[in-house]
Amino acid sequence: MPAPPRLRVTPPRWNESPSGRAVVRRRGTAPAAGSRRPPLPAGPARGSPRAGGRGGAIKRRGGGWTPFLSAMLRLLLVLLFLQAPGALPVSPCRRGGAPPVAPYLTRYLTQQIDHFGFDENLTFQQRYLVADQHWKKNNGPILFYTGNEGDITWFCNNTGFMWDVAEELKAMLVFAEHRYYGESLPFGNESFSDSKHLNYLTSEQALADFAVLIEYLKATIAGARYSPVIAIGGSYGGMLAAWFRMKYPHVVAGALAASAPIWQFGDLVPCGAYFSIVTNDFKKSGMGCSESIRNSWKAINHLSSTDAGLQWLSNTFHLCSPLKNLQDAAMLKNWLSETWVNLAMVNYPYKADFLQPLPAWPIQEVCKFLKDPTLSDKLLLQNVFQAVNLYYNYSGEASCLDMSETATKNLGQLGWYYQACTEMVMPMCTDGVNDMFEPQKWDFDAFSDQCYRFWGVRPRPSWILSMYGGKNISSYSNIVFSNGGLDPWSAGGVTQNITDSLVAIVIPDGAHHLDLRSRNPLDPKSVQQARALEICYMKQWIEKARHMMMDYTSSLAYAWSLACVINDWNLKVYVSYSLGNAEAKRMNDFPKA
Amino acid sequence: MPAPPRLRVTPPRWNESPSGRAVVRRRGTAPAAGSRRPPLPAGPARGSPRAGGRGGAIKRRGGGWTPFLSAMLRLLLVLLFLQAPGALPVSPCRRGGAPPVAPYLTRYLTQQIDHFGFDENLTFQQRYLVADQHWKKNNGPILFYTGNEGDITWFCNNTGFMWDVAEELKAMLVFAEHRYYGESLPFGNESFSDSKHLNYLTSEQALADFAVLIEYLKATIAGARYSPVIAIGGSYGGMLAAWFRMKYPHVVAGALAASAPIWQFGDLVPCGAYFSIVTNDFKKSGMGCSESIRNSWKAINHLSSTDAGLQWLSNTFHLCSPLKNLQDAAMLKNWLSETWVNLAMVNYPYKADFLQPLPAWPIQEVCKFLKDPTLSDKLLLQNVFQAVNLYYNYSGEASCLDMSETATKNLGQLGWYYQACTEMVMPMCTDGVNDMFEPQKWDFDAFSDQCYRFWGVRPRPSWILSMYGGKNISSYSNIVFSNGGLDPWSAGGVTQNITDSLVAIVIPDGAHHLDLRSRNPLDPKSVQQARALEICYMKQWIEKARHMMMDYTSSLAYAWSLACVINDWNLKVYVSYSLGNAEAKRMNDFPKA
Repeated sequence: MPAPPRLRVTPPRWNESPSGRAVVRRRGTAPAAGSRRPPLPAGPARGSPRAGGRGGAIKRRGGGWTPFLSAMLRLLLVLLFLQAPGALPVSPCRRGGAPPVAPYLTRYLTQQIDHFGFDENLTFQQRYLVADQHWKKNNGPILFYTGNEGDITWFCNNTGFMWDVAEELKAMLVFAEHRYYGESLPFGNESFSDSKHLNYLTSEQALADFAVLIEYLKATIAGARYSPVIAIGGSYGGMLAAWFRMKYPHVVAGALAASAPIWQFGDLVPCGAYFSIVTNDFKKSGMGCSESIRNSWKAINHLSSTDAGLQWLSNTFHLCSPLKNLQDAAMLKNWLSETWVNLAMVNYPYKADFLQPLPAWPIQEVCKFLKDPTLSDKLLLQNVFQAVNLYYNYSGEASCLDMSETATKNLGQLGWYYQACTEMVMPMCTDGVNDMFEPQKWDFDAFSDQCYRFWGVRPRPSWILSMYGGKNISSYSNIVFSNGGLDPWSAGGVTQNITDSLVAIVIPDGAHHLDLRSRNPLDPKSVQQARALEICYMKQWIEKARHMMMDYTSSLAYAWSLACVINDWNLKVYVSYSLGNAEAKRMNDFPKA
Repeated sequence: MPAPPRLRVTPPRWNESPSGRAVVRRRGTAPAAGSRRPPLPAGPARGSPRAGGRGGAIKRRGGGWTPFLSAMLRLLLVLLFLQAPGALPVSPCRRGGAPPVAPYLTRYLTQQIDHFGFDENLTFQQRYLVADQHWKKNNGPILFYTGNEGDITWFCNNTGFMWDVAEELKAMLVFAEHRYYGESLPFGNESFSDSKHLNYLTSEQALADFAVLIEYLKATIAGARYSPVIAIGGSYGGMLAAWFRMKYPHVVAGALAASAPIWQFGDLVPCGAYFSIVTNDFKKSGMGCSESIRNSWKAINHLSSTDAGLQWLSNTFHLCSPLKNLQDAAMLKNWLSETWVNLAMVNYPYKADFLQPLPAWPIQEVCKFLKDPTLSDKLLLQNVFQAVNLYYNYSGEASCLDMSETATKNLGQLGWYYQACTEMVMPMCTDGVNDMFEPQKWDFDAFSDQCYRFWGVRPRPSWILSMYGGKNISSYSNIVFSNGGLDPWSAGGVTQNITDSLVAIVIPDGAHHLDLRSRNPLDPKSVQQARALEICYMKQWIEKARHMMMDYTSSLAYAWSLACVINDWNLKVYVSYSLGNAEAKRMNDFPKA
């Protein structure tokens, strides 16, 4: 799993994943380098390869990028794996291992490669999935997943919420693949060959694909012409869902943007907020926990100043490749940082197999080893090892820990690296005071230079603000932003209501878009309530859209505002429609889903 | 003036206007081909060249395009000249002839050539004009002209309304030049060299330019940071103003879209509506007028079937170049059609010098010659000549009439031809029943083939609907669409309220965006009332924007709806703010312009 503050990694090599579709390699599929070592205490064998996901493998190599910049890029990559396979009850479209047996149809639509220019009149096949078993054909709604940076079947397999509500809403489900990911490659194997071929990988082009696809569906599926469409997405997909509603309100009636850090740009939020939330997760999960981690860096610095210390660290952390110098020690620190960040994102309330098997509330488990920050360097670091060993070796089968593998194998694609180097510039930093990490400033110029060297393009950090409005978005409407209180990405999310129809739902006990996962008996009440509210808003949007399509005046629509309330946090959802008799009567004439 | 249904003209030659800036050539600046002829009865000498306007000269050549397709393109070009110099009282920025002595500053901003891709990181200088003499520096509003297809100084010189209201609103005026027009040429002299260089000429790129420019102005002009911005434009500029508010409501608080045919696309309006309005203008302006014109086509057909008839037509119409065959006769018909269409657009209530000197209500004057549609062919056509002679020779100095000149010399640029062949596909047709023209169907395939042959690109007629929503735009807000009842372009305009904040203002006595012209003592009451309403809405948007910037809730904003009413058409504008005491008190704390 990515998201470390300063792992010494490099972005993927230029031609490493030319198809943009690397097969997910699970940890343990290749023999560990240090397999001569005896099995580690805590964990069973690493799992067998799991099929289905195509997150894109990122290989690393030394040199080229500075550790922090590389780490920053990997951190941005975190967005990628928010949708990794979890412990979902098997539902039509989702199976952990084997190819889905799901009752969805795989379809392809011919799309313009360049919606915004006419010189290149080339097209590509965009893949999308359709599941209509619960759809009420007479203009029942469409829930439209705005695919993000990955294979769309992976998102289909891991957005249980949509499958759970399809019947209640009598909705068709559509999962649209984002261009340059999965099978939706504008130039086939050449899509990633150079910056010219990558030129059409932008959020604007992706949104245009979505708009054209929806118009096509409405025009071609019998009974869908007046179907209200709701955009749903998580993480970058959530950003796309929100932006889709903002830019194409004539196409989608509303959007559920789960864990969407639409404000993680420019100076809209402090660059350190993300790591501060990670730190708080640890602080809350056990006395002395975050302090132990904060103190661990100095302990590593002390020990890594001598060869004997490096040897001790290598042994203590059961590293597959021993540390040889200070650079290796820096890698160790980055690897540990990445681990803490990843834990914060998958801090789910039930035993889950997100990217590896983990217990419920894994940070609490980890913190059981990190109670005393005042210990000597060696004792402290022995405890840190116990903590990370739980994360990497919960199954108990690892013979050594490989710093080049944190969990990122399911993640990362050339495409997202490119996006991070163009539009999606998300400043990140640490100060060691408000967070438990070593201080590191955000250095845009260095980042830009690295991007230029790697891709031949430079990021334009202000463009996304011009395009999508930054915090000045109150003119838009019908978006629910949900965020988990435990999720570091909530730092860049909308966590307070902006208007009556730009609504923030905070799930205090939620990690990264827990609400989009399937229902689980161990779900905390907060996520159950969040889902109930989300459904309520979706119903509102559907009804409103139906009104507007029937050419009703907007004054009627105003009467629907502020209808969704959770009373006393008691799961009672009040949907009050303040319509007069005349309107109520006319409503009976509407075609209903 | 363009807009004929079937003139035998061709679009401009590929490299004809590489700079995109042809100098306006006034009629009479070159010796008329048939100058041997005696002066015509009705009109004085053609005027001397008038500087300032840079509408772009379109030269024509035979062959290549079918007459109707060419005519269609020229018709689209009508958009171009809506802003031609009129009989405006001299104001700071507008002078008929000499270069403007106006107190505006000419500025340039470095813009990305491609906002939507990162491979080409090239930039160009966008020109814009700023006039701030009436601006209240403490966040007074900005009226932002969304420049359309022409030199921005021309629009600055011909949008007197903005100059007239600047003081009342304490507003800064900004006129932003549209890329590929005037001086804002992305690739300098190469901008029109091929479809690759033209690839960035789209409405989306233009809107992005506007957004970036406004953000730059707010960031760099002291006291402008919270200035509410209102977009204003006419014709294609009006379309851009509306679309700008739709797509960038975080940048502009509202938009005045004057004579903006945003629905002249796809099948949103009947393709014949435009010509039907032209016909009605003539029908209303004199008994027998439209019938005379309708009958004139058959009369021309009869006469042009013999050489003697062609000779008679050449003599009767005082043509500079005599008609030699049926093709020439078709040109005559197109030229006449273009004349009637142009008259409909400039049918202003006062003597004006739009593209040539014309009396007040010129169609009424023309119709005085066309009272009896039952006359014999020759008598009828002699009357038709009298009518067009009034249009082409009001000044009385023409020695012959040149069919290659209708008024389009101020208009037409390669750029707009390109736009018509890519995004701006506006179907037009005639049936001879609901209009007074010869029947001609809309043939998209032929049009597309012509575009491909000429530009190497094909139009995508549905894209504009996907992008801007067609008629499904009720989710947007704060746009006033004004349309003149006499203006053929109102056929594609919004002429009925859509919601409380998408408001239609119809000016029954108005031709093409009369409301954007300077106040004139002969203005009919309807345009005075329209301007009063427009000002009222602008004030509303400004106040609302100020609220929102001050972080007020939108519920407060709702209270401002439906505030602008003209009582009894008596020019009383009621602006009622239904705010409670608490809010009213808080309002006093706002920084006011």
